[in-house]
Amino acid sequence: MDRRSFLRNTALGGGAAAASTLAAPAIAQGNRTLTMVTTWGRGLAGVFDAAQRVADTINGMTDGSLTVDVKGAGELVGAFEVFDAVTAGQADMYHGADYYFVGQHPAYAFFTSVPFGMTAQELVNWYYHGDGAGFHDELGKIFGLKSFLAGNTGAQAGGWFSREIKGPEDFNGLKFRMPGLGGKALGKLGASVQNLPGSEVYQALASGAIDGTEWIGPWADEKAGFQEITKTYYTAGFHEPGAGLSIGMNREVFESLNAQQQKMVEIACAEAHQWNLAQFLSNNGAALQRLQSAGVKTLEFPNSVWDAFGEASDAVHQENMGDDIYKRVYDSYMASMAASSSWIQKSDGAYVAQRNRVLG
Amino acid sequence: MDRRSFLRNTALGGGAAAASTLAAPAIAQGNRTLTMVTTWGRGLAGVFDAAQRVADTINGMTDGSLTVDVKGAGELVGAFEVFDAVTAGQADMYHGADYYFVGQHPAYAFFTSVPFGMTAQELVNWYYHGDGAGFHDELGKIFGLKSFLAGNTGAQAGGWFSREIKGPEDFNGLKFRMPGLGGKALGKLGASVQNLPGSEVYQALASGAIDGTEWIGPWADEKAGFQEITKTYYTAGFHEPGAGLSIGMNREVFESLNAQQQKMVEIACAEAHQWNLAQFLSNNGAALQRLQSAGVKTLEFPNSVWDAFGEASDAVHQENMGDDIYKRVYDSYMASMAASSSWIQKSDGAYVAQRNRVLG
Repeated sequence: MDRRSFLRNTALGGGAAAASTLAAPAIAQGNRTLTMVTTWGRGLAGVFDAAQRVADTINGMTDGSLTVDVKGAGELVGAFEVFDAVTAGQADMYHGADYYFVGQHPAYAFFTSVPFGMTAQELVNWYYHGDGAGFHDELGKIFGLKSFLAGNTGAQAGGWFSREIKGPEDFNGLKFRMPGLGGKALGKLGASVQNLPGSEVYQALASGAIDGTEWIGPWADEKAGFQEITKTYYTAGFHEPGAGLSIGMNREVFESLNAQQQKMVEIACAEAHQWNLAQFLSNNGAALQRLQSAGVKTLEFPNSVWDAFGEASDAVHQENMGDDIYKRVYDSYMASMAASSSWIQKSDGAYVAQRNRVLG
Repeated sequence: MDRRSFLRNTALGGGAAAASTLAAPAIAQGNRTLTMVTTWGRGLAGVFDAAQRVADTINGMTDGSLTVDVKGAGELVGAFEVFDAVTAGQADMYHGADYYFVGQHPAYAFFTSVPFGMTAQELVNWYYHGDGAGFHDELGKIFGLKSFLAGNTGAQAGGWFSREIKGPEDFNGLKFRMPGLGGKALGKLGASVQNLPGSEVYQALASGAIDGTEWIGPWADEKAGFQEITKTYYTAGFHEPGAGLSIGMNREVFESLNAQQQKMVEIACAEAHQWNLAQFLSNNGAALQRLQSAGVKTLEFPNSVWDAFGEASDAVHQENMGDDIYKRVYDSYMASMAASSSWIQKSDGAYVAQRNRVLG
C-alpha cells in the first residue's frame, strides 16, 4: 500500500471521526491544558519517552498554568492521523517522526532521516546553527504548524536477516521490512519492500513471510525479540543514520501562548532531543552487550553493498528534486553535512579510532 | 606555576577582595536577579556564548521574575576566582570549565574532559543516563554548589606545531602550551609544558618562546590567528576529546528558587550544552575549510605517538586514584564509555566511514 495515498485518504477521515471526542483546550483560572497526540503506543521505549519528556519539562516549569497531556497512538487519533488532527485544530500538538508525513510534503523526510544523510549530531548542527529550523518552519507554515526537533533515536541498525548479505545481488527478491525513503532505495536493489506496522513484524519474521527487518537499534530490537528468530544482525545501516523526532504544534495555538510559554516549548523540545538521543545510545550500548552474550553475531555490510546503497539513495533523492522546497532543503542539508562531517571526522572520528585502538 | 596552588592561594583572596563590590541578590516586587560570573572574557566566541545562552533562556522563560546577569572574567572577579566567589555566596552562579577547579577537587576534571576520555556524546550519555550528574552533584555538595553541564566545545584540536611530530621522542624538550591533565601527560613524554593564559599564547608562539600550542578548534584557533605563525595543524588531540562547560550555582541560592525556577535552570543548562556543541562543530567545519584554503596543512599524529599519549594519560589517572571520589568517578566513567562507545562505533562510526567513502 502506498503510504502517501494511505495518509491522504485515511488521515483526514480519521481526524474527522475523532473530532467529536476531543475537547477544546481548557482555559480556566488562567490554567491551560494542551493535548499532545503521538505516533507512539503508550509507553513505547524511547520514542514515547521523548514525547513524555517534553510534556514533563513544560509541566514542571509552569506549575499548572500550562499543562501538556500526552496521548498514545489510538487514544484520541491513530498514529498516522496526528498530523492532520493538529493542522485541523482537533489536537494542540503532536509528537512523531516527521517522515511519516512525506505524503503531506516530501521534504518532511529531512527532519527525521534520509538515506545516506546526516547523523544525529550533524542534524543538530544544521538545525540550530544552519538552515534546518528555518526550513522546518517554512514547511510548518504551509500546514499551519510550528515545528521543533524533539527527540532522536540515533543511527538505526542495519537490521536482522535470515541469511548473511555478501553482495548487493543478495537483496534481489529479498522480502524486507523498511519504511520511508530507505525502503524505496532498497526497492531499487530488487528487494520486495514491506511496510508492516511494528505490531506485525515479529510474527512476519518468525513465519518467514519476510526475510528480514530493520527496526531501531539494540535496545528496542531486543525488546521486540528478534534475537529469538535470527542471530544475524547488521549494526550499521544506510537508511536512517540519525532519526529525529518532532513536535508539531498548531500554529494558532502556539501564537496564542505568551512569549515565556513559547520559549518554554522551544527549549523543552530542544532539551528532549539531547536527552532522548543519549537515552537511546546509553541503552543501546548495554543491550548490544546482552545480545552478543546471547549469541547474536554482529556484522557489517561489505563495501559493494554500501556502494549500491549510495547509488540507490541518490536515485531516490533525485526523484524528488522536481519539488522546489525539497531541492532547496536537500542542497542546504548536503552542504552543511559536508562541512560539519569534515571537521568531525578529523577530530572526534580520528580520536575515537585511535583511543579504541590503544585501549583495545 | 602549579595551577592547584595558584587556585588555592589566589582564588579565595581574590574572592574576598571582590566581595565588597558585589550586591546581595536583588529581591523586589517578586523579581529577582542572579549574578553569573564566568571564566570567559566578555564575548569570547563559543564559551561566553554558552553562558549567555543559559541566561537568555532563563530570562526569556520568566518575564523578569528571574533574571540572570552575566559578567565576563574580571568584571566582578577574575576567571579562576569564580568557583570560590560562588561557594562563598559573593556571586550566585558561575559558568566555566570545571577542570579549572581540580585544585578544589581533582574529580572536577571529568566534567570538562580528561585525556583519552569521552567524546561530547559519550559524556552526555553518562551524564544524563548514567552516574555523571549524580557525581557532579556529590562534588557540588562538598562545596555548597548545585552543578549542571551547560556547554561543550567538542573535541579539541591536537594543536599548532612549529615542526611535524614523527614519533613520541619529538615531544622531548618541546615547549608546548597545554593546561590540565593533558599537560601533565605531555610532561611525561618529556615536554616542557607551559600554562600560559590565552592572551599570551599568540605572542609566545610568534616569538619562539613556545614550540606549539593547543587551543580549542578551527573556529577559535583561526580567531586567535595561529595560522599566521605556523601552517602545521594537528586536528585530533588526546587531551580534551569533548570539553564540557558547567554552571555551578550556590546551593542555597538554588534551593531558594521555587520548583518551577529550579526546573528552568536545569533545562536551560542542558539545552545550552546541545546548542553550544552544535555551535562549535558548525563553526569549526566552516573554519577548517578557510584554514585549508589559507594553506594550513592538517595532520594526524602517527600511531606511536597515540600509544605514548595513551600510556601517559593512564599514568596521570593512576596518580589520582588515592582519592576515593576520583576513583569511583573514574570507574563509572570508563565503564560507561566502553559500553557507549562500542555501540556508537558499530553504528554511527561504521556508517559515517562508509558514507564518506562512497560520497568521496
